[in-house]
Amino acid sequence: MARSTESRRERRIAAGAGVRQMRFGGVINRYPPIAIMSADEIEAIHLASLRLLAETGIEVLHDESRALLRAAGAEVDDSTLRVRFDPPMIEETIRTAPSSFTLQARNPARNLIVGDGSLIFAATGGPAFVHDMDRGRRAGNYADMCDYIRLVHSLNVIHQEGGCPCEPTDLPPDSRHLDFYHAAIRLTDKNWQCWALGGYRVEDAIEMLSITLGQTRDELRQNPATLTVINSNSPLRLDIPMGEGLIAMSRAGQPIALTPFTLSGAMSPVTIAGALTQQNAEALALIALAQVVAPGAPVLYGGFTSNVDMRTGSPAFGTPEYAKAQIASGQLARRYNVPFRSSNVTASNAVDVQAAYESGMSLWSTIMGGVHLIEHAAGWLEGGLTASFEKLVLDAEMLQMMRSFLTPVVVDEASLAVDAISEVGPGGHFFGTGHTLARFENAFYEPMLTDWRNFENWQESGARTGTDRANGIWKELLRTYEQPPLDEAVDEALEAYVARRKEEIAAGKF
Amino acid sequence: MARSTESRRERRIAAGAGVRQMRFGGVINRYPPIAIMSADEIEAIHLASLRLLAETGIEVLHDESRALLRAAGAEVDDSTLRVRFDPPMIEETIRTAPSSFTLQARNPARNLIVGDGSLIFAATGGPAFVHDMDRGRRAGNYADMCDYIRLVHSLNVIHQEGGCPCEPTDLPPDSRHLDFYHAAIRLTDKNWQCWALGGYRVEDAIEMLSITLGQTRDELRQNPATLTVINSNSPLRLDIPMGEGLIAMSRAGQPIALTPFTLSGAMSPVTIAGALTQQNAEALALIALAQVVAPGAPVLYGGFTSNVDMRTGSPAFGTPEYAKAQIASGQLARRYNVPFRSSNVTASNAVDVQAAYESGMSLWSTIMGGVHLIEHAAGWLEGGLTASFEKLVLDAEMLQMMRSFLTPVVVDEASLAVDAISEVGPGGHFFGTGHTLARFENAFYEPMLTDWRNFENWQESGARTGTDRANGIWKELLRTYEQPPLDEAVDEALEAYVARRKEEIAAGKF
Repeated sequence: MARSTESRRERRIAAGAGVRQMRFGGVINRYPPIAIMSADEIEAIHLASLRLLAETGIEVLHDESRALLRAAGAEVDDSTLRVRFDPPMIEETIRTAPSSFTLQARNPARNLIVGDGSLIFAATGGPAFVHDMDRGRRAGNYADMCDYIRLVHSLNVIHQEGGCPCEPTDLPPDSRHLDFYHAAIRLTDKNWQCWALGGYRVEDAIEMLSITLGQTRDELRQNPATLTVINSNSPLRLDIPMGEGLIAMSRAGQPIALTPFTLSGAMSPVTIAGALTQQNAEALALIALAQVVAPGAPVLYGGFTSNVDMRTGSPAFGTPEYAKAQIASGQLARRYNVPFRSSNVTASNAVDVQAAYESGMSLWSTIMGGVHLIEHAAGWLEGGLTASFEKLVLDAEMLQMMRSFLTPVVVDEASLAVDAISEVGPGGHFFGTGHTLARFENAFYEPMLTDWRNFENWQESGARTGTDRANGIWKELLRTYEQPPLDEAVDEALEAYVARRKEEIAAGKF
Repeated sequence: MARSTESRRERRIAAGAGVRQMRFGGVINRYPPIAIMSADEIEAIHLASLRLLAETGIEVLHDESRALLRAAGAEVDDSTLRVRFDPPMIEETIRTAPSSFTLQARNPARNLIVGDGSLIFAATGGPAFVHDMDRGRRAGNYADMCDYIRLVHSLNVIHQEGGCPCEPTDLPPDSRHLDFYHAAIRLTDKNWQCWALGGYRVEDAIEMLSITLGQTRDELRQNPATLTVINSNSPLRLDIPMGEGLIAMSRAGQPIALTPFTLSGAMSPVTIAGALTQQNAEALALIALAQVVAPGAPVLYGGFTSNVDMRTGSPAFGTPEYAKAQIASGQLARRYNVPFRSSNVTASNAVDVQAAYESGMSLWSTIMGGVHLIEHAAGWLEGGLTASFEKLVLDAEMLQMMRSFLTPVVVDEASLAVDAISEVGPGGHFFGTGHTLARFENAFYEPMLTDWRNFENWQESGARTGTDRANGIWKELLRTYEQPPLDEAVDEALEAYVARRKEEIAAGKF
């Protein structure tokens, strides 16, 4: 983290014109993760999920996945599509999953470590809609997608593009992944997540990364350069596109966050322990499949257990149940020694206090629970239906605060400051002392969005809320955005690849 | 906590008309507190603060406090008003402070345990201004003070009135504490905090509690019924009114949260370790004074270290530095085996996302840091200058969420739900199952303020933000407020006491 060694002036320059922010940098979480369950309780969930996989199993719609699992020793019934697993088979198979790995970015300074004590903030991915205060809510589209990627590039606290900020619904569905990939490569030099809905979308990502990085597929397999999320269709089902995507990613050596969407009370039991049992069963089955495809394939244990509002059936996010489930999920992931993926979520429809406190619940519980990758760390609104421009900035501020919180307090003779306190003495003031002057520039977190002025100054300058200020910040970031350089020949090769593939896809060749 | 054993209908009735909320109940924090510093680092702060007390000492403006400390073995210089402490004297003196105690309320069902695993949420106390969305910001006044106390009574998650929500500036300064005490006794049956600015304000509280509870001063000494905050005048000074108040409270056996206001970069060193050293020195000196006055006097270790914005000198609250300082303060309080007091703070000028995320930082860090009493847990805005009606509701929602988060997840055969999951099977739904139907009423946290409806329904109903909804909630709570019964004879005796004391004070007899 460069922050502690650079001057305020340098940081200001780094930030571009009017927006003050942290530099890009890795985040190390030194806190021992908190636990919400005893070791016995975690073991009970583990054993219950193994029983579920042995007795009930999961339904695998994808033929090749079933065949691979059968060959690896699972009990497969092709008439019911049901796959059952002996507990020892699961335990032995998942053992090859690595506990950490590195992700390449096209700017090597932005490579990411997944696992260990490293903490990665990924931007939101997948929303169907996009929203800002000026233009309101609208369907995802290519222009907004590009602007959003520019902001993800500009906000230094975000480590990774999160797999398309909003669906570009103005482009053909079967080939729009190519437009997204090309935009992600051009508009940011950070690592970006690919789409795994069907194997061909993974293949296109690998090919385009191969062109971008000038690396063979073998080299990419050794040094993964993208990541995706595979959701089971809870309860207990893996569909065809997800099965294809999982296999393609694992064969290519690219990491997958295997994430059951176990919404307690709807797609999973109304008890948190039950929802976690089901989450764990589905996650273990998917991790096992990835390891069967390619032993050592990089995976993350994905926790997404939340609950529905039992009055309306609406999904609820950032709830106390969500916080508890994430902390328990971290405990489960550590039991299997694989990195843990969670999310920064809210069900709020506006960038308001609810959005802030639900995201706060999410961030604190996942980070204190030992998360390694926070998906949707910035920008998600409306339970993930919308990518919000103002929420992106709000989240970036909260992420900066968490990153600052995670830097250790220095305790040594000079910082204990006994002499400085004695020098100031009773009733004195520390502003002008040597001890203060030598340290004040980098002493405290400097916010991007927070306004600490007093009421009178704040009111005179327009009484703008945090959301109003977020609106100003993303506009300023877009105004001062600079596209990271990309070799012209590479860009041309990408253009040719995209053009060729679009023709093929239009002709039905996926 | 009654919530898990009562039906939704009962809860709705309990809440009064349109506002759904938790019932009043104690909160037990079962999490082992998190640590931000090693035991060696905490010891280094401890030793540095003892060195500071021995070499530099503190300035005690209050004659009686100096005399008591001299008699107890401290080194006192009456010409400079400086009091220095030998480390063994501090260590031996503070040893008599109890690790927990009980606070009476006039409704015994609302008695409070301070310390152990108990967690108390106190409403904001002390702001000069008051604010709501309709009427804007105005000077504290008696009518608003009363309405605010009515809301503190109505919001079940708040355990304790926090020492006057806003200063009633329309009443004479020397006797307005009597009006506040009388209002607090009449308008809520929860425990309330008294004022300690000068000994006579404490005496009036004790006398009025004696009348209210029908208990002698001796009985009140055994069973304390109020609490107050004593701030040192950082750096390193105890002034006359605070010295008087501290002595009066300790003699009367009423607990004090001894809280240095060590704003890093202004009234304390720019380093967090230094600010904590100073906080610890001041807190230890005040705890020692309380124990000298009355060995066994109930005290809390108060942590309030935050930082200034070094660009403007404005105090900043709910910052990463604040979060770290609170967690370290909890570690220090545990080293001395006394309960720990912290606060829910924000510097925001509006009930906006900043207010929510700064309060979220405060609540998570203090609660995970093992706090026992959260002062200003609900209502504080503008760095404590303003009591906000909407912030009160926002905070109450966040407190409810934390309380729900702190209830353990049940892990047993039934909650693990293996049979229920098998019964539903792949691709099924849990809404209508027996397992769900038997549990859905009390399965999840039910919010007061949060809106989980989808975007379309939310928009059709007016697209109200969380702050807008908070405005509706406090109005509904005021509309349905019912004053808790108070014996008429008691009220008359209180009235007579207040009238007599106002005459005395007007005549200069404090």
